[in-house]
Amino acid sequence: MAQTLRQNRLLMTTTKRPAKMVNKKSSGRPIKVAILGFGTVGSSVARVLAAGKYPGLRLTHIYNRDVERKRLSTAARYVPADAIWTENINDVLTSKVDIIVELMGGLKPTEAWIRAALTLGKSVVTANKQLIAYRGASLLRLAKAHSVQLIHGAAVAGGVPVIPGLLHGQSADHITRIRGILNGTCNYMLTRMEAGAGYAEVLSDAQALGYAEADPSADVDGFDARAKLCILSRIALQAELDPDQVPAQTISTIEKIDFMYAKELGCTIRQVSTAQLDSTRAGAMVQARVGPMLIPHTSPMAWSHGTQNMVVASGRFGGDVVFSGRGAGGEPTAVAVVSDLLAIAQGGVSVELPVHRRRVTGDFISPHYLRFVVNDRPGIVSSIAGALAKVGANIDSILQRPGHDKHALPFVVTTEPCLNSTIDKAVEAMAKMNCMLERPLCLQMLEPEPPTA
Amino acid sequence: MAQTLRQNRLLMTTTKRPAKMVNKKSSGRPIKVAILGFGTVGSSVARVLAAGKYPGLRLTHIYNRDVERKRLSTAARYVPADAIWTENINDVLTSKVDIIVELMGGLKPTEAWIRAALTLGKSVVTANKQLIAYRGASLLRLAKAHSVQLIHGAAVAGGVPVIPGLLHGQSADHITRIRGILNGTCNYMLTRMEAGAGYAEVLSDAQALGYAEADPSADVDGFDARAKLCILSRIALQAELDPDQVPAQTISTIEKIDFMYAKELGCTIRQVSTAQLDSTRAGAMVQARVGPMLIPHTSPMAWSHGTQNMVVASGRFGGDVVFSGRGAGGEPTAVAVVSDLLAIAQGGVSVELPVHRRRVTGDFISPHYLRFVVNDRPGIVSSIAGALAKVGANIDSILQRPGHDKHALPFVVTTEPCLNSTIDKAVEAMAKMNCMLERPLCLQMLEPEPPTA
Repeated sequence: MAQTLRQNRLLMTTTKRPAKMVNKKSSGRPIKVAILGFGTVGSSVARVLAAGKYPGLRLTHIYNRDVERKRLSTAARYVPADAIWTENINDVLTSKVDIIVELMGGLKPTEAWIRAALTLGKSVVTANKQLIAYRGASLLRLAKAHSVQLIHGAAVAGGVPVIPGLLHGQSADHITRIRGILNGTCNYMLTRMEAGAGYAEVLSDAQALGYAEADPSADVDGFDARAKLCILSRIALQAELDPDQVPAQTISTIEKIDFMYAKELGCTIRQVSTAQLDSTRAGAMVQARVGPMLIPHTSPMAWSHGTQNMVVASGRFGGDVVFSGRGAGGEPTAVAVVSDLLAIAQGGVSVELPVHRRRVTGDFISPHYLRFVVNDRPGIVSSIAGALAKVGANIDSILQRPGHDKHALPFVVTTEPCLNSTIDKAVEAMAKMNCMLERPLCLQMLEPEPPTA
Repeated sequence: MAQTLRQNRLLMTTTKRPAKMVNKKSSGRPIKVAILGFGTVGSSVARVLAAGKYPGLRLTHIYNRDVERKRLSTAARYVPADAIWTENINDVLTSKVDIIVELMGGLKPTEAWIRAALTLGKSVVTANKQLIAYRGASLLRLAKAHSVQLIHGAAVAGGVPVIPGLLHGQSADHITRIRGILNGTCNYMLTRMEAGAGYAEVLSDAQALGYAEADPSADVDGFDARAKLCILSRIALQAELDPDQVPAQTISTIEKIDFMYAKELGCTIRQVSTAQLDSTRAGAMVQARVGPMLIPHTSPMAWSHGTQNMVVASGRFGGDVVFSGRGAGGEPTAVAVVSDLLAIAQGGVSVELPVHRRRVTGDFISPHYLRFVVNDRPGIVSSIAGALAKVGANIDSILQRPGHDKHALPFVVTTEPCLNSTIDKAVEAMAKMNCMLERPLCLQMLEPEPPTA
């Protein structure tokens, strides 16, 4: 059996050893599970495990800093009475735990602990997007070297099975583009703004609801989404990207007026993450970017409301596949985590395809939306048109809503498709014009797709 | 290793033996694949295999009736030159083929051949919805008894990874409802009718495009969709249903006028398949039904256009997860088939959960749409209202568009939520009224869902 498995894996991948099953010592004993980090997701994992569908999985250890506070919380009622609560990671690492569920997040000290666990022959299930985006390739190699599993279905889109769908149902396709709404906090904020609220108000509400941190930068500036995008790129495009090389544009410069103009253009605004094989460069680069975009109301991405996530995977053979649902929250994320636990417990192995390191370009060809706030005077449109003409960009439309103060007049120009690097040159020139009261806002626009047959 | 695997599977399921890997004899040899049925999907599978992503899989046998015709077709250019073309199934069954891809469809002679293949130790990948809906439970037991794999990710929704997503990403959830658009032909026809075409015209076009058979009954009368619904019920609800017990309502009675009235009600019309655990009967029954329904424009299902499929899986923990994409066609289906091949080749095992046989009820509580065509005279509305009052159904709205002949007047009544069995009694009584020029059309209406947070 071991030899059979080894042959198989040698054939299809470069695996040196067979995957080790978790329950490797005694006959019929339950599979022991430890949770590192007993916050919202951790306590939901305990609750889903306690719901009784998986008698073979037993929660035996909970690690958390200041663990007594957690042990006395109401969430602790879903943890078996004989589980060990500890604030010493060595109690978990030296135990007979089979699978460690890592829900602490971040790189320090998490990475070192995960490496220790894998090296000690424990499988790991994690929802840690930063860890998997920045260290995933290396950690997956370490897991393979020690014949254990590292699964991270919850690291992207929470309860939406994008990673399992890509790995198990679309591995045969040649996926050329991944595009999606990967940050529920931004989607909540932009959905609220679409309904008429202002940025400061919705940020404050998102913080009060626990969707956004006191420092909201990871969400609104796109760093959370680009980590997830890099994980999807590794799986779907077989392209390993450096997250820090993926351009991320903040949503914090979007204002109510932009939703009004977007609506006139048949669009809404969403934080969109895109990674696509750059066909002009023979697959050697990946075009990748995170930021607010104008999305036509007819696009699936405009359907995504509130904290929902959505991913569209475009394949050469299978066309566009859309996944959507709850991308965050304790229980949806716990579904993904416990499904991964169940897969390991049943001896499942992840489908593996070779991954190649790819350089990133943030340059896309698309129409652009430019919104200016100017102190109005004759000749402004002519100056702007001149700046665009100088870089070779063509104007598609000019929109100016009535009723604004001429001394702080917002108006919009849209362009025909061109590279953002081209538009950026024009924006630099226009930002220096005396009439500009603020830096022009430049957003990519998603072109409407032809209707499906 | 074998013992480890056995222990695991004994623990989590009632498996008696470990799953056998496919490549079980020689070291490093490719995994041999046979295709039964070289039609649109079969030739697409050959093409996807030939695209070069999976060097370890080798297509060695093609079975088809009248095989010379296939061997001489242009589609044959994707088949390796040394593959064996045969119209004798025994050439495949007695060969050293590891995995058989069954794309013939139907129960005869397919079922017997699949049974023979599994018994001979060959794994099977199939897209055969009828076979899996009617015989899946028994065939899965047979596969397990012979330690081989039977995977059927392509049997529902073609290239949309609904089955892999449910099995690998949502196994931990307690899914209480599966609802979806499972038949692309009906969706194409109803999308065309939504845009103004008549039923006869769109049926004729669907036949010309190869979407519908000369006898379109399997599609338009819902038999195709209910087979798929029963497969999803087994996986998502862990409920084994008899497909013949699932009520199926035809779409052939839908007319242009129904789309006009639907639009006034903020809706469109789609063929919808639903299976849900009947909470009022403690899970002992499943409410299941296939048929045309009024769908609010705000529902994800109203987004589904053309031949697309869509599935919404509603879980106790994970909420609603939406999958959509190309549900049919050679290449999307081939992606699902080859992804299943790759999973078997890499030693993957399907996640298994216990399945229980459940009885079906077609009775749902919902609002209803009733469309009448009457020879107008005073007192008709009063008679209809009386028939509804007699069964205890409340009218929600009455719609009558202007401009129709009073001797063949279509008008619509919608009711508040009640059981279809209640409405059916009223329809029986109303059908007998002298004024009725045809049997009243009764459609369930999907209630608008509250917006997501």
